[in-house]
Amino acid sequence: MPTTNRRIRLKSRPVGKPSADNFEIAEAAAPAVGDGAVLRRTIYLSLDPYMRGRMSDAASYAQPVGVGDVMCGHTVSQVVESRNPDFRAGDFVTGYDGWQEYAVSNGKDLRALDPKSAPISTAIGVLGMPGLTAFVGLMDIGQPKPGETVVVSAASGAVGASVGQLAKIKGCRAVGVAGSPDKCRYVVDELGFDACLNYQTDDLVPALRAACPKGVDVYFENVGGKLFAAVLRVINRDARIPLCGMISEYNATGDPGGPSLRALLVNRALIKGFIVSDHADRAPAFLKECAPLVKNGRLRYREDIVNGLDRAPEALFGLFEGRNFGKMLVCVSPDPTRA
Amino acid sequence: MPTTNRRIRLKSRPVGKPSADNFEIAEAAAPAVGDGAVLRRTIYLSLDPYMRGRMSDAASYAQPVGVGDVMCGHTVSQVVESRNPDFRAGDFVTGYDGWQEYAVSNGKDLRALDPKSAPISTAIGVLGMPGLTAFVGLMDIGQPKPGETVVVSAASGAVGASVGQLAKIKGCRAVGVAGSPDKCRYVVDELGFDACLNYQTDDLVPALRAACPKGVDVYFENVGGKLFAAVLRVINRDARIPLCGMISEYNATGDPGGPSLRALLVNRALIKGFIVSDHADRAPAFLKECAPLVKNGRLRYREDIVNGLDRAPEALFGLFEGRNFGKMLVCVSPDPTRA
Repeated sequence: MPTTNRRIRLKSRPVGKPSADNFEIAEAAAPAVGDGAVLRRTIYLSLDPYMRGRMSDAASYAQPVGVGDVMCGHTVSQVVESRNPDFRAGDFVTGYDGWQEYAVSNGKDLRALDPKSAPISTAIGVLGMPGLTAFVGLMDIGQPKPGETVVVSAASGAVGASVGQLAKIKGCRAVGVAGSPDKCRYVVDELGFDACLNYQTDDLVPALRAACPKGVDVYFENVGGKLFAAVLRVINRDARIPLCGMISEYNATGDPGGPSLRALLVNRALIKGFIVSDHADRAPAFLKECAPLVKNGRLRYREDIVNGLDRAPEALFGLFEGRNFGKMLVCVSPDPTRA
Repeated sequence: MPTTNRRIRLKSRPVGKPSADNFEIAEAAAPAVGDGAVLRRTIYLSLDPYMRGRMSDAASYAQPVGVGDVMCGHTVSQVVESRNPDFRAGDFVTGYDGWQEYAVSNGKDLRALDPKSAPISTAIGVLGMPGLTAFVGLMDIGQPKPGETVVVSAASGAVGASVGQLAKIKGCRAVGVAGSPDKCRYVVDELGFDACLNYQTDDLVPALRAACPKGVDVYFENVGGKLFAAVLRVINRDARIPLCGMISEYNATGDPGGPSLRALLVNRALIKGFIVSDHADRAPAFLKECAPLVKNGRLRYREDIVNGLDRAPEALFGLFEGRNFGKMLVCVSPDPTRA
């Protein structure tokens, strides 16, 4: 049994870009296992853009992490000790244990994973929160119809990759936007998008017009900023814009501004913000549709894994600069299911 | 029978603010009345913000008026001569005859008016296109629920006045925004809104917070610009923003910009542009609900009438500066139904 628990706590709230100073590593005693409790060891910690919001105390859709508290995050873990009949030592589970090596609870916050049906890391990736985000935003707000054109930003990322592949499966033209030639090649060659723009180097409006000869019907928004302004210039009548994230603006200290929305008026277009945690009721439909697609290789994904809990802060900073390539994970302890 | 037809044509396309130079007055021969035709004399011409878009050849939702063509516009007219069994001389009709004294057609573009059921001018106001605009935007996109707060810009105008009154009828708190103390008094005292802000003098965010203690659930957008940015700071979760117009931006020569849309994300809010001409199918439901409300005085309106076709251009310019007070109409020829 473990005796210590390494954890990363929020030390202070960032102003603008977060830095290493905003975190501190602390060792606590390993949690005790009372009656009915389940102790598990973190294998994978998911790093996601929403974490920037939790570091801040500005009004948002969820309570911020308290200063001095362990940073939050989705996790895949293995049960070390269980005094709960629903779990046994050795079981794999997914939960929301945050940035720490060990966690304990009554198990109600856990979902058991079958490592034979899909790699356990997918429970916090393509078949977890990012996958459900793609599914809900695209299907419920985007409502893609065959022959339409779907554009998605952060296309090589955990959400964007699924959006474009699901759009293809629905019979749409899928156009990605990513931040490097490597990522663009991956999006087209590996994920099967029809085209991918490089927002770092392409002249966005002409590049969008070239990649979307019939205009844009659905724009899945992950980034905000200049790309949003450019897309507004090429949207079609009755376009739908699921607003999932605005990562380019999360470190802004003031209102970074945006374009006029007149294009929405002229095109009778819709923008709808959504937060995946409101849509847990869609998880069964999502898993029913997407788990087989992952299994048969039609819904592909890529993971960018850093080893060691201590590297979580720098990996998170990299996420805001697009340095990751695929779903950003921290491997906190070895994954016994990987060779 | 008339021999000449005074008309105002678009002489040139404005860059930025339109001016008198963009129009020219011309006399043509009165139109001939062939078999099946209906000749009518314009009584009222409606002036509306959308006309700025029609003067421009930038891509929009409708074809622009051609240079040299008569300016477009909704009208109320009286039949002078009819060779069509559906109409008789003396009948009152509403149509889309534009900025001219006389028009002729086969009558399929006309709707007969009963001057006993409502003043004929209401056919291009509270019971016409502006009224339908308010109804469709508020009911179909805004979907107000009892106890919610509805904010509407240009609240003393043709659309805004109906939005707020319909919101009150639906059991909502109605808060207007207008451009002068007189207009604000009218909106509260005559139209029955709960409050009205003066966008010229009020500090918008605190004024909105004070007028909307429970936040904003529906914002009916007519103006764009600073007010939109301010409202985004006070919207509630699941807020709906019907985007009807952005009059503050229509004379802009570049993209006037706007706020970041992050508030939409955090609040899962929706913005939806709409164009009333897409919603003609809602006209029967609109008239069924609103005609009795006008008749019994629960849906009030105010008209700002200038006399003489030649004054149409200056009255239109005033509309973009908020100089009108109520529905802007041009009385092109005397209304025989008014004492």
